[in-house]
Amino acid sequence: MNSDTPSTLVALLYGPDYKGIVAKVSGWIFENSGNIIHADQHRDQEEGIFFQRVEWSNEGSLSAESVAQSFHEFSESVGMKSIVAVSHRKPKIALFVSKFDHCYHDLILRWKAGEFDCDISLIISNHEDLNASSDHYGIPFHHIPVTKETKAEAEAQQLTLLRDNAIELVVLARYMQVLSADFLAKFAKPVINIHHSFLPAFVGARPYHQAFRKGVKIIGATAHYVTADLDQGPIIHQGVANVTHRHSIDAFIQKGRDLEKMTLSQAVRWQLENRILVYENKTVVFD
Amino acid sequence: MNSDTPSTLVALLYGPDYKGIVAKVSGWIFENSGNIIHADQHRDQEEGIFFQRVEWSNEGSLSAESVAQSFHEFSESVGMKSIVAVSHRKPKIALFVSKFDHCYHDLILRWKAGEFDCDISLIISNHEDLNASSDHYGIPFHHIPVTKETKAEAEAQQLTLLRDNAIELVVLARYMQVLSADFLAKFAKPVINIHHSFLPAFVGARPYHQAFRKGVKIIGATAHYVTADLDQGPIIHQGVANVTHRHSIDAFIQKGRDLEKMTLSQAVRWQLENRILVYENKTVVFD
Amino acid sequence: MNSDTPSTLVALLYGPDYKGIVAKVSGWIFENSGNIIHADQHRDQEEGIFFQRVEWSNEGSLSAESVAQSFHEFSESVGMKSIVAVSHRKPKIALFVSKFDHCYHDLILRWKAGEFDCDISLIISNHEDLNASSDHYGIPFHHIPVTKETKAEAEAQQLTLLRDNAIELVVLARYMQVLSADFLAKFAKPVINIHHSFLPAFVGARPYHQAFRKGVKIIGATAHYVTADLDQGPIIHQGVANVTHRHSIDAFIQKGRDLEKMTLSQAVRWQLENRILVYENKTVVFD
Amino acid sequence: MNSDTPSTLVALLYGPDYKGIVAKVSGWIFENSGNIIHADQHRDQEEGIFFQRVEWSNEGSLSAESVAQSFHEFSESVGMKSIVAVSHRKPKIALFVSKFDHCYHDLILRWKAGEFDCDISLIISNHEDLNASSDHYGIPFHHIPVTKETKAEAEAQQLTLLRDNAIELVVLARYMQVLSADFLAKFAKPVINIHHSFLPAFVGARPYHQAFRKGVKIIGATAHYVTADLDQGPIIHQGVANVTHRHSIDAFIQKGRDLEKMTLSQAVRWQLENRILVYENKTVVFD
Repeated sequence: MNSDTPSTLVALLYGPDYKGIVAKVSGWIFENSGNIIHADQHRDQEEGIFFQRVEWSNEGSLSAESVAQSFHEFSESVGMKSIVAVSHRKPKIALFVSKFDHCYHDLILRWKAGEFDCDISLIISNHEDLNASSDHYGIPFHHIPVTKETKAEAEAQQLTLLRDNAIELVVLARYMQVLSADFLAKFAKPVINIHHSFLPAFVGARPYHQAFRKGVKIIGATAHYVTADLDQGPIIHQGVANVTHRHSIDAFIQKGRDLEKMTLSQAVRWQLENRILVYENKTVVFD
Repeated sequence: MNSDTPSTLVALLYGPDYKGIVAKVSGWIFENSGNIIHADQHRDQEEGIFFQRVEWSNEGSLSAESVAQSFHEFSESVGMKSIVAVSHRKPKIALFVSKFDHCYHDLILRWKAGEFDCDISLIISNHEDLNASSDHYGIPFHHIPVTKETKAEAEAQQLTLLRDNAIELVVLARYMQVLSADFLAKFAKPVINIHHSFLPAFVGARPYHQAFRKGVKIIGATAHYVTADLDQGPIIHQGVANVTHRHSIDAFIQKGRDLEKMTLSQAVRWQLENRILVYENKTVVFD
Repeated sequence: MNSDTPSTLVALLYGPDYKGIVAKVSGWIFENSGNIIHADQHRDQEEGIFFQRVEWSNEGSLSAESVAQSFHEFSESVGMKSIVAVSHRKPKIALFVSKFDHCYHDLILRWKAGEFDCDISLIISNHEDLNASSDHYGIPFHHIPVTKETKAEAEAQQLTLLRDNAIELVVLARYMQVLSADFLAKFAKPVINIHHSFLPAFVGARPYHQAFRKGVKIIGATAHYVTADLDQGPIIHQGVANVTHRHSIDAFIQKGRDLEKMTLSQAVRWQLENRILVYENKTVVFD
Repeated sequence: MNSDTPSTLVALLYGPDYKGIVAKVSGWIFENSGNIIHADQHRDQEEGIFFQRVEWSNEGSLSAESVAQSFHEFSESVGMKSIVAVSHRKPKIALFVSKFDHCYHDLILRWKAGEFDCDISLIISNHEDLNASSDHYGIPFHHIPVTKETKAEAEAQQLTLLRDNAIELVVLARYMQVLSADFLAKFAKPVINIHHSFLPAFVGARPYHQAFRKGVKIIGATAHYVTADLDQGPIIHQGVANVTHRHSIDAFIQKGRDLEKMTLSQAVRWQLENRILVYENKTVVFD
């Protein structure tokens, strides 16, 4: 593509650090008619790993897709793993929801306000509550009930929907079911969850109740990638709010809704802007 | 005492809630020539417990001490436990320190700036590092080394110092020794500690290292009362700060110093202003 | 009313401070079969003014309305102005909007989630953009265009709608017109606005642009009561967010949307819970 | 120098943006035996200006000073202005103070704790209050009184001290005198001030009193470079804290002390780490 407004490319790359890698990357981009708009890098001093996010406008005659492919090959030739995204291609995402609707509305309204450069292609829920609302928003809604007995089958249905719609990101917007390791392995793309506590405190069920009983003075929410280990995946973002003895559990839950919305939406934005690299169960977020 | 500026009294009281208790307390104060300056109360709806902090100026002819004594008897007669403090009496406090000096300097400089209405009567340390500095500040310094073998004896020495100096509050300003249950039982007055994590996450040793390995995006500090259960006492105050992948463990520790100073000093201020009630391993803080 | 669940009453009162006023208020409530649930008070030391918010359950045989009326008369007899609200009576509110819809959706979704104890009775807008959305939410929408020439007439129409619907609170949810002093005098009830800056910095038009040019490192939003003096009414609540050189004006505006939602919704919640007293162009907020 | 631990260099550069500038800079560093540790850049899209901070270890045989000199010449040859610092060279700084001592103690204690890589070479004050304390810290103290009549002469004395001690940075740690345009022109190096308000709100004298009268719900502090225009220089950092009607002016001032310490010390740290570029009365801070 070579229209009037040039496409931009974003590459995330990482690998063993060595002298000259920054020069190699920026040199390649220059030689391939790119103009670097942003570049941010990080070096893990202990582990000797190099991380970089570089964004450039494609000002040559080749299509952005073909530059992306070339860059990927180049990065491997210099010892780096990479993910390269092209600005004019919108990733398709799916929201998983249950009954709580605050993150659901928040994400969709942000998307409609232009905050997220993606397509929200479908909603999957184990309940029917948000069916009418999804209709109003014009987003296909799929009701897939989940019980202990039907879980495997339900996940198979979900996977079919994700594959048929070429979904690249699943966001669990207070989805109250645990995804199996098998599901995650088969989907093999990022799944982001919002946990309503300041992890690693209060893993598991009813974290606001746990926090209340403990008498903490700050509550939190944690957006993280989902792994087979419950609430243990790499942390992307955390938010907190002060509470006092005056706050009941209901007040924790109400305050928590704002935390969850702010924290999850920030994580999704970073994901869509290709700002996150994962290594050793931690994240590097180029914000 | 009945000087030109009337003394003020602060009462903290709690007990089973019942209709009319607020009227009884304010009525008693009015009848005893008090003018209420602040009053704040809380009702634990689940447990049916009433909590109140009330501050009044003593405008009658009796001494504040004698009013305090009368109020205490009154409160028992209406089914409430109470603590009553008199404004012109400065509590004596002791700081326990080891080698880290940031909370130590912070507390002393705040005290010298007039933020704390108390006497810092002595410093106790298991190291000699802060001896000269304490001399400069004009505060008696006691070096009491602690080893596994000498711990019982060291605690006996500490208790003697606390008793001889009529200490009413011990502040552990990054004191790196665990106080025994026996010590706490014998001292029988509040001991406030600063733990350098967002409890209940990262209990125990080297919490910044634990947080770093976990990849959290927010670090915390927790000021709490010390109980026989390590890092499990009632939480008074918590502070947090954002961190990113760019922060090394050293940067966590540096950022943490500010958190620890802010969080511990706030807890000490509240304690000295008689703003904290403890029940069921939680605190009510009338801030 | 004297049903199974007793009604609660909330009184806000203020006036010249004097000894015994707290006892008088709590005594009256006790004598009139009330059980105080919360009470919070404040004394302006410089001005000698007493402020109180007291909430009690009505456990006698009289209706809450009649107790409210009696309390009001009592408060005047003890030299205090007062506002008394009854819990089972939902105030009716109107939202004024233009084209920006983030505060509009936020307020309505919070209301539907049960955060606001009120009726959102109508939407008034100088544009038609939010007509369909209001239909979906089931809230009557009134399109009243405003030009310099038609402003007086438009305000007359607005006032008629507010009067006919017994509106007690108007919330300007990013309404882009200035209300005249005449409108405010005739409505004579609270009007809450959200200004998208940290007042008093950046009064007037395009505050994010002003902030950007100034190079500030924190942006803000301010919820305040509307007075005839543009952006100068009593401040209810303020929120802030960090920005850096990386944030464009568009990023300021995007971040600002979250600030505006959080700040305005908190102010509206406090207003509906009868937590705000105004004096000398400042607010006392019993939170 | 080419010892066992290689020196690091930090360059700040900016100039008109053009394609290939990133490659040129990283290429030069690679060719001159440098290993890039961090690199961060920014492009002002509206103005078309390129900004970069790049830090590299010097692994060749030339001294860091000579590499710094070469880099500076290189940067001019590619159209960029630059400042280049060498890690093993500690800048000398001077603190200007009056009577308030919180920022003074805070900066010195952070320096002694190893947070600041500099020498605090001298203290200049228009009062004698901090003379003994400076002796205790082992820092030369110079008492230079300032009156309207003696101001020019006092500034001449100050300039002599700064020149004789090769001072590269002046920090006004609540220094209560305005520096003249003439002083600033002659010193011609950075001067950082802490203003105790959230600028641009409450310029000038007694900002906490101004904030109190206005009834704001958040107070702030602003660290900025000093220019001839009072309180109008480029903003480096801002901090804020919540206040309520319960906070008196004294409480504003007390809370403000913490804000001032945190905000000023962060600005000084960034300055010492060569993280700040100024343009058009704004700052780019590579944090």
